[in-house]
Amino acid sequence: MIGRLNHIAIAVPNLTDAVKTYEQILGAKVMPPEQLPEHGVTVVFIILPNTKIELLEPLGENSPITAFITKNPAGGMHHICYEVEDIEVAITKLQSEGVRILGDGKPKIGAHGKPVIFMHPKDLNGTLIELEQI
Amino acid sequence: MIGRLNHIAIAVPNLTDAVKTYEQILGAKVMPPEQLPEHGVTVVFIILPNTKIELLEPLGENSPITAFITKNPAGGMHHICYEVEDIEVAITKLQSEGVRILGDGKPKIGAHGKPVIFMHPKDLNGTLIELEQI
Repeated sequence: MIGRLNHIAIAVPNLTDAVKTYEQILGAKVMPPEQLPEHGVTVVFIILPNTKIELLEPLGENSPITAFITKNPAGGMHHICYEVEDIEVAITKLQSEGVRILGDGKPKIGAHGKPVIFMHPKDLNGTLIELEQI
Repeated sequence: MIGRLNHIAIAVPNLTDAVKTYEQILGAKVMPPEQLPEHGVTVVFIILPNTKIELLEPLGENSPITAFITKNPAGGMHHICYEVEDIEVAITKLQSEGVRILGDGKPKIGAHGKPVIFMHPKDLNGTLIELEQI
């Protein structure tokens, strides 16, 4: 079912510092920041030869990553995203296995403009996993 | 400096359950478990089209991931590994930027038989990062 690793998301308290880490220290290719108010984050993509790192900073008062940053003030790995060909097929399979889909169980349009779902970390080895239909 | 994402490591309390998650629920290609007593882990690789997931279960009494599992009983994302061409060049660069290398600051032979280092998460956005010389 799952295909490529689309990205790893790392939540950070301060994008400027995190960009410095990736650009200046680790020497990676870093894209300009994009504010995504509808997702409550500002995002910076780090382009690796085989995948992407998504640096996320809270944006606005109801950011979905504020609680994570409060718990992990230095930042940390927030979620990983796998690609699937058909998100409805994925939802049916996951629900048949008892995996809880976050929210109302229906795909949303994610940060890349594609349908996505997130699953409950407790059902998947403590890892917050996003599936994105490619 | 950094090249491909070599792997994401996910520490789990029970490999059998985690393998079931990835094989049966997520439909990924899962390799047989390998015991690596010198690293204090049993590892299972999940092969994705563009990278690998490394599932780690503590092995033995002094496993380096026991404390992580105690803190995260359901498991969780443990570290990410980027590839570098020359680990000595990487060490010099990191130290010049004030990034702390774990242990004695010298590369060790990692789980794939290649020289690796780990850096202090507090210096890199709260993320435990491994560099592997390819």
